[in-house]
Amino acid sequence: MLTAAEAARAIAEGDLTCEAVAAACIERIEAQEDTMKGWAYFDRDAALAAARAADKGPSRGILHGVPFALKDIIDTADMPTGHGSPIYDGYRPGWDAPCVAACRDAGAILFGKTVSAEFAHVQPGPTRNPYNPGHTPGGSSSGSAAVVGAGMVPAAFGTQTTGSTIRPAAFCGTVGYKPSYGDFCLTGVRDNSPSLDTLGLITRSVEDLALFRSAAMVLPYKPLVPVSLTDLRIGFCRTPWWDEAEGYTKDLLTETMEALSRAGAQVTDFTMPDGADGLVEAMRDVSGFEFARVMLHERLHHHDQLSERLLNGRVADGIACSYDGYRAALATLEDYRANLSAAMADFDLLLTPSASGEAPEGIESTGNPVFNLPWTATYTPAVTLPAASGPSGLPLGVQLIGHRNQDHRFLSAAQAVEHFLDDLTV
Amino acid sequence: MLTAAEAARAIAEGDLTCEAVAAACIERIEAQEDTMKGWAYFDRDAALAAARAADKGPSRGILHGVPFALKDIIDTADMPTGHGSPIYDGYRPGWDAPCVAACRDAGAILFGKTVSAEFAHVQPGPTRNPYNPGHTPGGSSSGSAAVVGAGMVPAAFGTQTTGSTIRPAAFCGTVGYKPSYGDFCLTGVRDNSPSLDTLGLITRSVEDLALFRSAAMVLPYKPLVPVSLTDLRIGFCRTPWWDEAEGYTKDLLTETMEALSRAGAQVTDFTMPDGADGLVEAMRDVSGFEFARVMLHERLHHHDQLSERLLNGRVADGIACSYDGYRAALATLEDYRANLSAAMADFDLLLTPSASGEAPEGIESTGNPVFNLPWTATYTPAVTLPAASGPSGLPLGVQLIGHRNQDHRFLSAAQAVEHFLDDLTV
Repeated sequence: MLTAAEAARAIAEGDLTCEAVAAACIERIEAQEDTMKGWAYFDRDAALAAARAADKGPSRGILHGVPFALKDIIDTADMPTGHGSPIYDGYRPGWDAPCVAACRDAGAILFGKTVSAEFAHVQPGPTRNPYNPGHTPGGSSSGSAAVVGAGMVPAAFGTQTTGSTIRPAAFCGTVGYKPSYGDFCLTGVRDNSPSLDTLGLITRSVEDLALFRSAAMVLPYKPLVPVSLTDLRIGFCRTPWWDEAEGYTKDLLTETMEALSRAGAQVTDFTMPDGADGLVEAMRDVSGFEFARVMLHERLHHHDQLSERLLNGRVADGIACSYDGYRAALATLEDYRANLSAAMADFDLLLTPSASGEAPEGIESTGNPVFNLPWTATYTPAVTLPAASGPSGLPLGVQLIGHRNQDHRFLSAAQAVEHFLDDLTV
Repeated sequence: MLTAAEAARAIAEGDLTCEAVAAACIERIEAQEDTMKGWAYFDRDAALAAARAADKGPSRGILHGVPFALKDIIDTADMPTGHGSPIYDGYRPGWDAPCVAACRDAGAILFGKTVSAEFAHVQPGPTRNPYNPGHTPGGSSSGSAAVVGAGMVPAAFGTQTTGSTIRPAAFCGTVGYKPSYGDFCLTGVRDNSPSLDTLGLITRSVEDLALFRSAAMVLPYKPLVPVSLTDLRIGFCRTPWWDEAEGYTKDLLTETMEALSRAGAQVTDFTMPDGADGLVEAMRDVSGFEFARVMLHERLHHHDQLSERLLNGRVADGIACSYDGYRAALATLEDYRANLSAAMADFDLLLTPSASGEAPEGIESTGNPVFNLPWTATYTPAVTLPAASGPSGLPLGVQLIGHRNQDHRFLSAAQAVEHFLDDLTV
């Protein structure tokens, strides 16, 4: 199962054709999709035709021939965009969102659209965890995490408004990335809560994150910089929600921290600045106020097709929140961002849980986002790396947090930790 | 020619039917549209039918029966949305943007879509100034300003990324409003530069701004608070671009300041904090970087249908701007916002030109946005009020600036100035 970078290199060097890479992906899709249900839209013949066309033409860029997928709230010209809701069944917005246009222009081959929770909130679609179909893949980027976790494609875009990329990425044994808020262009991506929304990426390596970041942002590709663990100052961040983590999650984080320390990293405890508890309420008010408004057309004209969980969840939160409450919540988040940034000054990375534990059983709940929420709130970049298996044999991740708007430096540091964890596992 | 508030009151009190209000608007549209070309889409029969239906039903809200229009970059379910470009000729996005759904839910009657400059940038459509068809209405919200200025509808939505609402509103003798950044939901509105874009409103009174603000934001309607001029501390803000203003604009501003002072307002000079000059370059980099990416689908797939001015303008600016340059420009703007906010602490309002002068002759240029740019950059609310006529008999406005995120208080103060100017004119 190749990473995006490996596939791109093999194609560039003539070791593999685009068609061979695509065919291998298609084979894994056909073997698993009946059980896993990760795709909202997938057209085998179109994917294969695009790969064959790529073999005939010159290299288009750093992702030439690399298959990828999109959460089905991202607009596409030649595929439907269903927003995880029957209201938009078969909807065709008629253009490619800029992130899609950019990746295709860099040579990547769009395989299809992946299942999203309803409007990227919490009501799940039919997708199953690739490691055990009795469990959730997480959400709301459920399908994107599942199809990468199953090796169906090396990369998929998700989005995150609370924990919708990092948590499912961890549940499905993949590498997940929530960029600094504002870095990736969200045009053509369905809004959930615009003050919090970011695109997300789910891949099988940190190098792949850098490749897709460069392509999607239309920035010259700069390879990640090799970083020595001994140069890294890592803060062990239990967060105020540590007690919500399973015992085995606490053990994993503690053992990882100790192993990093033994390997020479400068690991010390990091305590979040006072006020972290208030982030949960502030995030509820901001996302509620915005989502209730974003959803007006559907609330007014398609009310019967919205789930109870959507209406009684974030929409109800928003109806209950006044304008003054909303402004106060935004101010709370803004103040906290400055405090966190100051507190992080002496650290390169924070290490913290990606999720409270393994993917929950059943597919009704997409899991607890509390370990993701603070980093969405603070606009900091986050990466989850697969690190171990839990008691049910499902993947566990560890989450790294970096400095806001320094994502290239952050990904370079994250890659050092990734390589260290890979060596541990071997 | 009724304001939105006057029409709503007359309908609520049974003095006018919705149909009578609509019919009066339609009459003015039919008399002037051949010359003025303000509409991208207008369906007389649908507007009349909607008004008749409103007469048959109960009042739906504070805008019951009030006609309004939308800049043609705002999505509508039952009308095309053309983005001011042949690429989107006849495009139907299939839903109402939340601001549209909200105003319709409050009873307002959508008359149609108004001409926008190409993707809300600078290449103008065919619209003429309602005061003189030999002159521009301004842009990019060209049609919205023109149709309100001509009395065709009492209110229209625009957008502003540099000066695209305030300047055309002033050129067309209307009241224009750029809210604090982030207040109005932009979902379903075509992005230009997301870090700067705001919705805008063009009406014939400040009271109407408050009505539409409440409806569009789905906030309980709070009437504006009566404010005495003698309680207002007004800063006379010439800006570093004062020399770009025509002599008659300088005279108007100076005379307005003196008249306000005589009426008891506490008027003193306000000097923008150091660094205002740097806003122009920072805005160029931020809007360029973002717009070049927002436009990727069209640049890659419809290049021949984009204007030279778009490609050589903001897109070229964006291609020339590095990621580090973009981040530095965002930081420049953020720092300046804090400095301006501190400098404004002892003022309720700033008074500054709405534009350098009258609407330029011809329709190729939409005018100089330099007096609008700083207030978009600083996220502060801005209102233009019609104040006089220039040497060619075209309208001149004065611009008021308020404290960020205090728009209700700001509009209340602006209404006091509006009433004062109305009395002066009488």
